[in-house]
Amino acid sequence: MITRLPMKPHKLPFLNDYMYACHPQILKQMAALADTPHTGYGCDELCEAAREKIRQACCCPEAGVHFLIGGTATNVTAIDALIRSYQGVLAAQSGHINTFEAGAMESAGHKILPLRPIEGKVMPHILSEWLERDKNDENRDHTVRPGALYISQPTEVGTLYSLEELTALSHICHQAGIRLFVDGARLGYALASPQCDIDLPDLARLSDGFYIGGTKLGALMGEALVFPRPQDVPDFFTQMKRHNNLLAKGWLLGMQFDVFFTDDLYHQIGRHALDMAQRLRRGIEDMGIPFYTDSPTNLQFIILHRDEYHQLRQEADCEIWEELGDDRVAIRLVTSWQTTPDDVDSLIQVLRDIHQA
Amino acid sequence: MITRLPMKPHKLPFLNDYMYACHPQILKQMAALADTPHTGYGCDELCEAAREKIRQACCCPEAGVHFLIGGTATNVTAIDALIRSYQGVLAAQSGHINTFEAGAMESAGHKILPLRPIEGKVMPHILSEWLERDKNDENRDHTVRPGALYISQPTEVGTLYSLEELTALSHICHQAGIRLFVDGARLGYALASPQCDIDLPDLARLSDGFYIGGTKLGALMGEALVFPRPQDVPDFFTQMKRHNNLLAKGWLLGMQFDVFFTDDLYHQIGRHALDMAQRLRRGIEDMGIPFYTDSPTNLQFIILHRDEYHQLRQEADCEIWEELGDDRVAIRLVTSWQTTPDDVDSLIQVLRDIHQA
Amino acid sequence: MITRLPMKPHKLPFLNDYMYACHPQILKQMAALADTPHTGYGCDELCEAAREKIRQACCCPEAGVHFLIGGTATNVTAIDALIRSYQGVLAAQSGHINTFEAGAMESAGHKILPLRPIEGKVMPHILSEWLERDKNDENRDHTVRPGALYISQPTEVGTLYSLEELTALSHICHQAGIRLFVDGARLGYALASPQCDIDLPDLARLSDGFYIGGTKLGALMGEALVFPRPQDVPDFFTQMKRHNNLLAKGWLLGMQFDVFFTDDLYHQIGRHALDMAQRLRRGIEDMGIPFYTDSPTNLQFIILHRDEYHQLRQEADCEIWEELGDDRVAIRLVTSWQTTPDDVDSLIQVLRDIHQA
Amino acid sequence: MITRLPMKPHKLPFLNDYMYACHPQILKQMAALADTPHTGYGCDELCEAAREKIRQACCCPEAGVHFLIGGTATNVTAIDALIRSYQGVLAAQSGHINTFEAGAMESAGHKILPLRPIEGKVMPHILSEWLERDKNDENRDHTVRPGALYISQPTEVGTLYSLEELTALSHICHQAGIRLFVDGARLGYALASPQCDIDLPDLARLSDGFYIGGTKLGALMGEALVFPRPQDVPDFFTQMKRHNNLLAKGWLLGMQFDVFFTDDLYHQIGRHALDMAQRLRRGIEDMGIPFYTDSPTNLQFIILHRDEYHQLRQEADCEIWEELGDDRVAIRLVTSWQTTPDDVDSLIQVLRDIHQA
Repeated sequence: MITRLPMKPHKLPFLNDYMYACHPQILKQMAALADTPHTGYGCDELCEAAREKIRQACCCPEAGVHFLIGGTATNVTAIDALIRSYQGVLAAQSGHINTFEAGAMESAGHKILPLRPIEGKVMPHILSEWLERDKNDENRDHTVRPGALYISQPTEVGTLYSLEELTALSHICHQAGIRLFVDGARLGYALASPQCDIDLPDLARLSDGFYIGGTKLGALMGEALVFPRPQDVPDFFTQMKRHNNLLAKGWLLGMQFDVFFTDDLYHQIGRHALDMAQRLRRGIEDMGIPFYTDSPTNLQFIILHRDEYHQLRQEADCEIWEELGDDRVAIRLVTSWQTTPDDVDSLIQVLRDIHQA
Repeated sequence: MITRLPMKPHKLPFLNDYMYACHPQILKQMAALADTPHTGYGCDELCEAAREKIRQACCCPEAGVHFLIGGTATNVTAIDALIRSYQGVLAAQSGHINTFEAGAMESAGHKILPLRPIEGKVMPHILSEWLERDKNDENRDHTVRPGALYISQPTEVGTLYSLEELTALSHICHQAGIRLFVDGARLGYALASPQCDIDLPDLARLSDGFYIGGTKLGALMGEALVFPRPQDVPDFFTQMKRHNNLLAKGWLLGMQFDVFFTDDLYHQIGRHALDMAQRLRRGIEDMGIPFYTDSPTNLQFIILHRDEYHQLRQEADCEIWEELGDDRVAIRLVTSWQTTPDDVDSLIQVLRDIHQA
Repeated sequence: MITRLPMKPHKLPFLNDYMYACHPQILKQMAALADTPHTGYGCDELCEAAREKIRQACCCPEAGVHFLIGGTATNVTAIDALIRSYQGVLAAQSGHINTFEAGAMESAGHKILPLRPIEGKVMPHILSEWLERDKNDENRDHTVRPGALYISQPTEVGTLYSLEELTALSHICHQAGIRLFVDGARLGYALASPQCDIDLPDLARLSDGFYIGGTKLGALMGEALVFPRPQDVPDFFTQMKRHNNLLAKGWLLGMQFDVFFTDDLYHQIGRHALDMAQRLRRGIEDMGIPFYTDSPTNLQFIILHRDEYHQLRQEADCEIWEELGDDRVAIRLVTSWQTTPDDVDSLIQVLRDIHQA
Repeated sequence: MITRLPMKPHKLPFLNDYMYACHPQILKQMAALADTPHTGYGCDELCEAAREKIRQACCCPEAGVHFLIGGTATNVTAIDALIRSYQGVLAAQSGHINTFEAGAMESAGHKILPLRPIEGKVMPHILSEWLERDKNDENRDHTVRPGALYISQPTEVGTLYSLEELTALSHICHQAGIRLFVDGARLGYALASPQCDIDLPDLARLSDGFYIGGTKLGALMGEALVFPRPQDVPDFFTQMKRHNNLLAKGWLLGMQFDVFFTDDLYHQIGRHALDMAQRLRRGIEDMGIPFYTDSPTNLQFIILHRDEYHQLRQEADCEIWEELGDDRVAIRLVTSWQTTPDDVDSLIQVLRDIHQA
């Protein structure tokens, strides 16, 4: 018998932004296409349509656009294509490629050169200092040469780069002959934020590659990778295959981005999640629970005592982001396209009960 | 506007077995689960249910079962986990890992040691001869040491190993301290063949790892990798992540195999495609068109003149498998779970018109 | 014409311990063997003799002993052989593999997991804390799994592990299923130190691999790698070849270690360099110049103002180890088998002149 | 006691060209430099002098010249620097990188794409056919993209490319955007052959990289790698370090090439070995023993019965190159800078005794 999942009541869903299958529009389009045959490996009309919509949204008609399966895959495949085999990747120590990618970057031979993060970000002056120190190092030829800078927008702790910061990073990188790559696993949650002054054309203008995250914005799976200058990455199709990132039914990926980039859906999804995050934020502020970072995006981090966290877990799905000592923990709360106002209000009530106890 | 595909009449669909989205049962189950949250990365109930069904089907209750995204990915990740970093992989020269995987195996550091194929297969005596020659080579320490034998069931040209052959290969490998891995991208089309005397428990008993293909049997994507002795591959979850093969919404993969292994669906899908292939085969035999291999599975290879091929392409999607010289070409015709008797009969008629002209 | 080097007066030689060709005994033995043919790749009588002497010195008759060309090469080849392809290497952030090896470890696919050093060393409690935190990390399967701990004896800043510390590290590693590897590029300078209570049999007993440095102890080139349990590293000869570390005239390496391990020469070389380092140390202490570390080995680190350093460089070869801020720099001064008492006394005089000015 | 080798009579030395330490001039120069300190890692005056002499010999004043330790190392490091990480290397199936390098090329991620050799060589028409077939392959994006062609001068079976062939290969490669690399492990034995119409300036003009072998021409170790356009390989020093090919006492390598390229020594060494090979060849021709290849260089291959080979091995060191079936074997006989006319005449006498028996 096909497995039926138990009808047990779910906990409040604030664990992550990829718990549910996909946005209803995607399911609908998939059903509509059930009897249509497609060319494999992303060489189909739906992918081409999605590519064109993304190029337009980026104001970059010559961009190379590729559909990959997941975030770790996209980071490695893209950066490996942008740099030389012996080069390393500068990244915040807290960057995803340095923490939760199981050594995928190193498996492609690239050392990660960690930079001290400030609220999850690589600040321009930190990058400049590193490069200056490197330039003056008499033994630099014995050390890993940097080939790219990796940053995330938003970062792993929900913070945002400003256009001024991104411009400065881009300038410093290109002066030093280094590529700039932007991980956009949650890019939709940045683009929709009123506090974000960076849009897609800025990314296309200032970076050497970035991706528009799908998995965490309501796709079944899939990320849209944009190379503003496709001549930088010859044979990228072959490189995707070699890195295990070429989906046989690639049209499934293009189809989802075609849906996202129709009638502004991608932005609406982001906007909704941010509204939910702000609603949550206000509720928490009212209670006086401290925040771990000041995040304008869909990731909210609050500081609780360990006991409070265990109580919270009775009612809500969420996880510890960092142990802070003294039995205090930073808790990550995530909203998404699926979060409802009721979910948020229930969570606030739960927190209030715990906090006031 | 969401892209609508043109209503142009499709050509007869014999290009491959992954042109369509997925089996209707899968789409139905996905719709049923639209509002259910799931734990990520394959650590969910659907994956666990599917694992249990596969373990039972393999008569191997202790097997490790993992759901990966695609075939190339599965080959590399599994073999890299089974062998040491410096070891190579024996495979038929025509094996998929040696031809159409863009160097993925070598990107993990493993040389492929090619063996002369006989009808796409590695025959036991060829393997024995290689190992004997290797054993006597005074310079063997300067050559790549073999760590695994890779074979496909069915092969890339649709042929099948017999149980006797598989048993012999397994014995030779294990005598030599070499792992045996079986690529089952189209395993369902072997298992359902009346000429196939190897079943899942045989694979679990004789190999060190194999996979049950989903993508080419009607899944959106996904392959079920079976390790009969999971202690051979510690930390395999981490290795999947490192090789870019861990799907965030991993439950999507488990869900599909749960459907496949319910009410014998996986076998039915295979059986249907083989019926269609036999119907096609009989039609072609009647016309006297020569076959390139004697394939009992869903891949049929016929030999045409190049002119005939170009005429055929007007009506049907299919491709050249090999240039045979003298303007003759081997053409691959593929049936699948989607092929209808009408598709087959129409194709036969087209071929008859061309051949008799 | 064969290049004659100018007869310009050399500066005082404190830059490093590999400026000169080799110990006179080695040159003499090479001349004696000029007309003798040898089997290639280390499969010769001299290598075998040296292996046997080293096994005896380690009280480890079953040890595998291999002669490699240089230190970076030995670190990578040995560790890659000891761990699985997906595993990482724990090391002090200041460890040689993490700083001056140009990403060689990552080129073999292994991430380095940095630990906070205390005087250049990995302290047992730091290691324990890391492992404890790792054990409790809910997302550990998404992170690099540690396969080995890398330490250096002496460290890059001249400090020494005590037998108690090494025993603790060994215990912690083996409890956690992690290998312990000891970089002995300058091992002779540790073994000869009165403050060192670790000898070769301890290393063979407590580690899973270590090497006895030749290049920095007066060899033309060459390191003797010892695996106490050779069954850990099957096909190591092949692995050396694959990692570009198999010398065609491998007997040259064995010959040098045969010389080193005859009549206690290796220990004498170390002893002499330490005597010179202590003579230097006392002279500097008398002047009141501060030390950067308290090193009991042949590397001495003193703190100068940048101006003083530039004056020093007029008379002596040496280099800046670290910028300390406020125009103060840590200077590395190195003694070796070639350093004479006159060299030391002249250096002390130069420093006195600068310091008193 | 320092190991003394037994005074047993050596067998006639025809096993290989790297059995002896080094040419007497090198030993003499090493002794002369015993008390001179040198800058490390090849950044010294002797290396610079040797570089300049090599640039002049190549008529290529802008060439990048690097000194590496051994042949396998040089092949991998150079080719990895010349091509992109995902590209493969075309080579004769019998090429050294495809046979006796233990998978070093694949360990750097590059698949070797084998071409059918004709007398050990890649013939231009074979290369053209491969490229033409590749160009027409509809699935080429799923296959490894070629980045370089690897050839050896002389080949592994002693044969030589003509200038016409090299020019054609160079032209075909560069038309196809592929680099041409020439393995010159025994280049001196080609350059000195009267039948060789390719000289160093031709190699600098037609290839993208090649090396001048030292190890097999009388160096202790060392190969001189020449990049005619050094801008092709940025940061090559760092790449040498990363690939374990940077010798601490790099001046030892430069010193030997300084000696080789003084007073035409490199050419004299080659010339002498070829004279010895021709003397041997004439003697064998007189006896009517068949040759396996028609080699104009220092490698001579003769065909014997296995019994004859075993008799030969009583008196001479040599090895089986290939099993030819029917108990016939191809035997490789190698001359070098050390071979004397007496060695040759004795070998001829031994062969005559065996053959006439």
